[in-house]
Amino acid sequence: MKDIRSISPSTQVCSVIGNPIAHSLSPAIHNAAFLELDLDFVYVAHRVEDVKNALAGMRALNNFRGMSVTIPHKTVIIKYMDEVTEVDRSIGSINTVINEHGKLLGFGTDGPGALKAIIDAGVEIEGKRVLMLGSGGAARAISFTLARNTRLGELSILDVNKSMLQQLSADLSAGTDVFIKSELLTDKSLGLAMENADIILHCTPIGMQPNQDASLIPAGLFRPEQVVFDVVYTPLETKLLAEARSCGLKVISGIDMFVNQAVLQFERFTGVDAPVDVMRRIVMERLGP
Amino acid sequence: MKDIRSISPSTQVCSVIGNPIAHSLSPAIHNAAFLELDLDFVYVAHRVEDVKNALAGMRALNNFRGMSVTIPHKTVIIKYMDEVTEVDRSIGSINTVINEHGKLLGFGTDGPGALKAIIDAGVEIEGKRVLMLGSGGAARAISFTLARNTRLGELSILDVNKSMLQQLSADLSAGTDVFIKSELLTDKSLGLAMENADIILHCTPIGMQPNQDASLIPAGLFRPEQVVFDVVYTPLETKLLAEARSCGLKVISGIDMFVNQAVLQFERFTGVDAPVDVMRRIVMERLGP
Repeated sequence: MKDIRSISPSTQVCSVIGNPIAHSLSPAIHNAAFLELDLDFVYVAHRVEDVKNALAGMRALNNFRGMSVTIPHKTVIIKYMDEVTEVDRSIGSINTVINEHGKLLGFGTDGPGALKAIIDAGVEIEGKRVLMLGSGGAARAISFTLARNTRLGELSILDVNKSMLQQLSADLSAGTDVFIKSELLTDKSLGLAMENADIILHCTPIGMQPNQDASLIPAGLFRPEQVVFDVVYTPLETKLLAEARSCGLKVISGIDMFVNQAVLQFERFTGVDAPVDVMRRIVMERLGP
Repeated sequence: MKDIRSISPSTQVCSVIGNPIAHSLSPAIHNAAFLELDLDFVYVAHRVEDVKNALAGMRALNNFRGMSVTIPHKTVIIKYMDEVTEVDRSIGSINTVINEHGKLLGFGTDGPGALKAIIDAGVEIEGKRVLMLGSGGAARAISFTLARNTRLGELSILDVNKSMLQQLSADLSAGTDVFIKSELLTDKSLGLAMENADIILHCTPIGMQPNQDASLIPAGLFRPEQVVFDVVYTPLETKLLAEARSCGLKVISGIDMFVNQAVLQFERFTGVDAPVDVMRRIVMERLGP
């Protein structure tokens, strides 16, 4: 497809919905991938307040093939799906909807995107002690995905929000067989957890623009044999990752998870392997200096 | 906008809905026009059975700016509009929906498109005796538009379908002040009407592919001072128009009405003057030999 004049009645449409949506990179990423593979798809963006009717429309509009879902709709949208996997119900949020001839299938690619980033970095997870900081939406998606799909040794979760922490811990205990420790995040609990951790997953917004001078982990706690993953990808290298890297740790940027979640969506939208490099390049162009 | 990689969250989306929709030229026409004027719009197509929910979706999906509506939804869709002009209610069908921040405005551009084709051909309508053949959807749109917006002398309507003919005649009498004669279409009534007519508007499917060897008007009835307009545009020149032209009559092809209805939609979608020549060229390329 060279330009929009090639769009025909057979062209399949995908969209990202959210509110606000003005800064979404999803149209740029997915359209670049459609173009690269010469697929008869186009990707647009819609600001949405009324999720229920947006989905009623998706069902009724044939060729409206796929939807990426972002804040604030990732949780509420589940109830309008015809099918959601058990793990996504446990996580309690999804970021993708596929329209199979009027039947809406919902699922999340954030957790699988993070897991793929960790595996692609060559990190061995089996038997490892994983420390997760945070218990919000990203933490839920990633912890359930790791608990279900890897044989990690133990999962420690620290957060300042006690009720969210307890909820995630209880849900993981009920829905998986992972060995969990959870504790309120304090200087002391963090220090002890860092002594123990092989892999650190930072799943809070700390360090995100415009607060890029913050990091949750004092650099003195790092050990070179540790791996640090950060869900934050603006800036591309957070203070946390920059300090960890200069201490000799292996670091994995949130950008990898972000690209991967789009890659996994693309592959469900289209049924073909995504041109990962093209998608990554678009993200780097848009987010880079 | 060079290619689909330029689509962003600010891009406005338009669509044609109908069933079937596979042969619609609307995406090609409108996208060529958006591209020509470098407008941040994209136009797709959706096969739709459930009109109500398709429109609920349009309301909920911000940036879903405009919709072209085709068979079989042009009549039923009126009841889901927030606003429809009186003339379009009288006609009983629309072909366009504009989404003004969740408020749906419906209107028809078939009648205005036909009127523009006649005016653009340099035909004077004021005081003229107009013969309309047919009383279906196109006939309704064109007759109401002419009756409301021109000072034609008299309007004769002939059709083989008595109930539709009577209904249109009654509706025109109630909704306009045009002087109407209506009669069942027979060889005799046609012969008499042709003796009287200045402008002949053919609004039936006769002559349309794959029945392009048919014409409703025997060539012997033509007089060179008459004008013949045909709503049919496949083939580009119907047998009716070919015979009329060889008898020296001025002829207006349905293609002009078809291009104009899209032009008028485009101008309502975008608020700017349409690149008419570009839109016509796309239609000719797609429909030409």
